[in-house]
Parts: sequence; structure tokens; C-alpha cells
Amino acid sequence: MHISELETPAVVVDLDVMDHNLARMAAYCREHKLLLRPHTKSHKIPELAQRQIASGAMGITVAKLGEAEVMLKAGITDILIAYPIVGDEKTTRLARLAEQSNISVALDSEEAARGISAAATRQGSTIGVLVEMDVGFRRCGLGNENDLLGLAKVITDLPGLEFKGLMFFPGHLTVGPEQRAVLRAQVNEFLDRSLETFARAGLPLAIVSGGSTPTAYESSLFHGVNEVRPGMYIFNDRTTAGIQAASLSDCALSVVVTVVSTAVAGHAIVDGGSKTFSSDRYQAEDGVGFGLVKEDHAAVIERLSEEHGILNVAHSERRHHVGDRLSIIPNHVCTTLNMHDEVYGVRGEQVETVWRVAGRGKVR
Amino acid sequence: MHISELETPAVVVDLDVMDHNLARMAAYCREHKLLLRPHTKSHKIPELAQRQIASGAMGITVAKLGEAEVMLKAGITDILIAYPIVGDEKTTRLARLAEQSNISVALDSEEAARGISAAATRQGSTIGVLVEMDVGFRRCGLGNENDLLGLAKVITDLPGLEFKGLMFFPGHLTVGPEQRAVLRAQVNEFLDRSLETFARAGLPLAIVSGGSTPTAYESSLFHGVNEVRPGMYIFNDRTTAGIQAASLSDCALSVVVTVVSTAVAGHAIVDGGSKTFSSDRYQAEDGVGFGLVKEDHAAVIERLSEEHGILNVAHSERRHHVGDRLSIIPNHVCTTLNMHDEVYGVRGEQVETVWRVAGRGKVR
Repeated sequence: MHISELETPAVVVDLDVMDHNLARMAAYCREHKLLLRPHTKSHKIPELAQRQIASGAMGITVAKLGEAEVMLKAGITDILIAYPIVGDEKTTRLARLAEQSNISVALDSEEAARGISAAATRQGSTIGVLVEMDVGFRRCGLGNENDLLGLAKVITDLPGLEFKGLMFFPGHLTVGPEQRAVLRAQVNEFLDRSLETFARAGLPLAIVSGGSTPTAYESSLFHGVNEVRPGMYIFNDRTTAGIQAASLSDCALSVVVTVVSTAVAGHAIVDGGSKTFSSDRYQAEDGVGFGLVKEDHAAVIERLSEEHGILNVAHSERRHHVGDRLSIIPNHVCTTLNMHDEVYGVRGEQVETVWRVAGRGKVR
Repeated sequence: MHISELETPAVVVDLDVMDHNLARMAAYCREHKLLLRPHTKSHKIPELAQRQIASGAMGITVAKLGEAEVMLKAGITDILIAYPIVGDEKTTRLARLAEQSNISVALDSEEAARGISAAATRQGSTIGVLVEMDVGFRRCGLGNENDLLGLAKVITDLPGLEFKGLMFFPGHLTVGPEQRAVLRAQVNEFLDRSLETFARAGLPLAIVSGGSTPTAYESSLFHGVNEVRPGMYIFNDRTTAGIQAASLSDCALSVVVTVVSTAVAGHAIVDGGSKTFSSDRYQAEDGVGFGLVKEDHAAVIERLSEEHGILNVAHSERRHHVGDRLSIIPNHVCTTLNMHDEVYGVRGEQVETVWRVAGRGKVR
């Protein structure tokens, strides 16, 4: 099937670019002796998780229990749920998963640790635990080394749990290279203090699990980090390119849309809006626009309605006509993909495969 | 099942509030002799479309062909696709739908009209057409009465099409009551000119299809409008309440979440983020926050990660603990619901029913 035969909007992945992205990250991790545990929230597609493992990943990361269940069903058995699992139903599901897989979770509270311990004990399973550090993103995680050690000791003493080490998410480093370097120095100070505190206490850290795509190729510069969890790198997106953590030619995923209206002067309307792209803003440069039109960089995707993308084409050389097809690189690939039930893998202009987004909608 | 037994995040609908919302809109439309054609994009649930029809709607509106197909399968046969249908595959699907249903579309170009006419002619079906006016939202639609008449004449002459009238979407009236009144006067000037132009040309307008939830209870003040297409009114949301088009007690839908972390001082993290609520901003007042915490109005949902809602609780009287459950009214109910596969209908604190969001993901 030729790509022009796909009905729009259609999420397409350039397989050559994706393969290159996978190979490059795997090579970097090999070179720097980093364990690669990709975050599959970016695609939620078991076949792609399998490709990541085939290309050098030792396991995967997920955000939700339901995603872990989908991935385990596809035969992937080394899974980190980088999320605090809270509540009886969920801890029971987690303990059941642990019977069939090598599963770990991240958490930052005694309450979460005790809940998981109780379920693991009931079920007779063992669950690995990473304690989450807040390195400056101010979302989850403990912000000082003594609290980290205190919680790690509690976990070590609780039945059904195996303390594995530390995890952090440097979400505030989704910025340009110079700013990343400044913020990385602060992260390293906290890492140094933490590594020293645990060493002094004689509590070994088997794993120190670090960053995501924006910092992935700088991972070796984070002190003590021996595992990384990039997600978006498989596709990249407009923001990743905007903060110079990838180039536009590394962007494997785009959404093919059709122009459905040009009635308003200076504008063209395409058949994808916030229910196709998500409303996520551009996190780089001036923050303007909801994606990049590959065929017309001068077009600005000014706003999104649910099913309409509103392009300001006042500065375009290209003339847009009803029925034209355009390809748009989204601001944020993870939330875009999460809107769709299927994704097309293309090689050149031929559609080679269709994947079902099996983990989509697994919100629990 | 008690509501507290639902795993989180869970989208719940208060059935008493929803029933009240349905009855109130139906009564308003009856009183003002307006045809009620609710936009089902807000829920995408056939059972709810059926309830809307049972309570007085004469048909439904959808945004996508795929949504129309889902609704037709559920036995709903009077459908307006308020969206230009462009492309051979889509016009063929449309013409097939028209064999089994009373289907109309809205469009604003001769290209779209000719494509649909060709498919209808091939298929031997007839498709109703509304010509879309741009009353100021600057998305789709023709902006002057002569262009409207010109396109209407083309449609009248094309085989397989039946010109039905005009449609507009006053999206720029998602503002407070005073501003709505000012903008409505401008819309009415354009309506007056258009009605006069069509009357003079002797081209009857069987339908003049107007606004959405923000203007729904002001519909009788729009000149010539005899049909309305509100969507959100079935549930309402934080923005609808913020622009005083509903009250908070009219908000039927909320998302039950669990606090999973309180490690960062002054903050509480819940297990729903942009993949639960969407990233849609608050379109009223100061625009701050990604939802309203029913149990704690002083909490500000400062930002959303994909699976984390970051609550600033510095000004809360309530103390938040890991494991606590909260109910959040989303900024925008349409995009929130679109993230989920099922929705729970509750009466008091009992879960009475579960609906599958059968139209979700029908992006084409």
C-alpha cells in the first residue's frame, strides 16, 4: 500500500529513521556501559518494545500497571513501573505480575512501600523497589539524601520487597544544551551527596536509574548513573528537536492530514486537532505552534480545535488547497500516539506494517 | 458497587445531574421551538446519544465519519456530520452511510461539495448539505452572504446533494455573558444579511443550525436559528461553569484520582495527568489550573505530566495523604472523555452502569 492511500489523519512512522534512532541509542549505552531500559509510554506498542529489546535494551519502563500487563502478555518480563503503585487493587495486581516477571517499582513514601510489601507478602512474591529522588523537577521524589536513606532502610526491612537503588526523572532539563549543563551540575551535587550517604551506611545501590530523551546522550555525565530510561528517542518530536536533543531529520513520526477548508483568508484547516495531536505546547524556542508542517515550515499551526488544526499560512510560499495532504511532526509524540488505535510503519513511501497501540487507554 | 471500589483514575458521571442537564436543555428547546441536535463528540457513547434522543433530541451531530458509523450501528439514523468530508475513501463511506440513514454534512467549498456529489451519484444516495458560515471564530466557514449564496446555488445544481441551509459554530463566544452579548450582536448582523440574501434569491433555508453549549440557553436570541447543537451540556465542565454558562453543581462528570505522592513540600501528586485529563487549558477567568478539585477548591492543579497531576496545596486547609481519593472536574470534558475506554454512571455513591466510549479513537 502506498502512503497516499492511507485515510487521514494517519500516524506514520518512518522505519528507517526509527531503526537508526534505536541503533544509535543502543550503541551509546553500550559504549558508556549503561543499562538501557526504554520508557514504552512513548509508543505503548508491544512490537516496538520487542524491537527495543532486540536492539540492546535489557528491559522496559512503563508508567501504569495496565501497560505492564500488556507488555508482559507480549512476552516482556523485565519491567520497571516508574510510578508509585498505591491502593489494594493495584498492589494486588502488581504482586500477581511479579509472579511471572522481574518487576520493580519506584516510590517515595513509606505508605506506598508498606502497601506493596503487604500485597507481595500475601501473594508470596518479591518486588524490586527504587526510591525516587527529586532532582529539581518538583513532582515526585525525596529531595535530600537522609530521607532517601531513611526510606531505603524501611524498604530493606519490609518483607516482599527488594531494595534496588535510586531513580530520578530530570524533567526540568527539557531545555537547551547550555541550560542542561547548568542544571546537570546541580543534579550531580545531589547525586554525589546521595552516593556518599549510601556508601557510608553500607547500603549498596545496584541501580541508579537516570534520565529521559532530552538528556540521554549526556547520560554518562551524570554521576553514578548506570541505567537510563529514554522514551521519545524512538521517534523524537518537535520539542526534542527544538531543545537540540535531536535533529528534525531524526523525527520518525508524523501525522498525515488533509486540508479540509481554506475559506478563511490566510488560513488552511486540516483534519487533525487536539484529539489527533493532543494540546501539548511546544516546549522550546518561542513556544508557538502545535506542530511542524514538513512540507511548509512557514505555516504556523496557530491553534487546535478538537478535530481542526488551524494553520496560519499568511507567510507561506505554498498555496494550500482543499484535498491537499500534509505531514505534521507533533510537539509531543507520547501524547499524540496516545490518541490513536493504530500506527503505520512506512519504508520510503510504502506502508510496511500496522501496529495496534495495545497499551493505549490502560490508565489504571 | 460503591464508588470507592473503583480503581483510579476513573471517569464518573453523576446520573442525577446528567438527567437534569438533559431534561433542562430539551425543555428550553421545546419552549423556543428549536430543533435539538446534540453534538455527541462530547461523550462518543451510543447509549448517551439514545438518552438524548429519548429526552427530546431529533437527531445527533458528530465530527467524524467513524463516529457516525458507530452511532448508526446503535440505531441512530438522523445524523449531521458537522465537518467537511474530503477525499475519495471518505466520500464513498459517506455515500454508503446515506443509504441507511438521513445524513447531512456541513462544508464551505465547492471542492468538498463536488467530491460528495460524485460519491453520492456513484452510490445512488442523497446527502443533505449545510453551508458553513464563519460568524467570527475564523476556523471554517464563508464570511459573507454572497459567497454563501454562491456555494448554495452550486450545491442545489449538483446531483446527489440536497441543500438544507446554513450552519455556524460560534466558538469565539466561549466567554462571559457580557462579552457573549456583544459578539452575538455581530453574529446577528451577519445572520440578518444572509437570511435576506437567501430570501431575495428565493432559495429557502430549511435549517439554520446554531450554537453550542456556551450559547445554548441564549439560542432564541440568534436571528433565524431553528436548530442547535450543544455538546458539553450533558456533563458541563470547569470552563463552562467559569464562563457562567452553567454552575458547578451542573457539572455531572468528574475524574476520581488517588494521591500517590506528597514528598515535595506544598504539593500533592495524583494519578491522572495529561493522558487522563488532556492538556486543555482553562478558558475562563485567569486561565490557571487543569481542573477543579471538588474536595479542596484551594488546591491548584498547577501542571500535568502525562500520568501525574501536580497539585499545589500550599493554600489548602485539607491535609493530603498518600492513598487519599479526590474528584476532579476537568477543564474540558470532551477531550477528557476522549482519553478513556469506559465511563461509570453513578447514582449517589453507587455505580449503576458502565458505558464503553465506542466512538473514541474514530479519528477518520
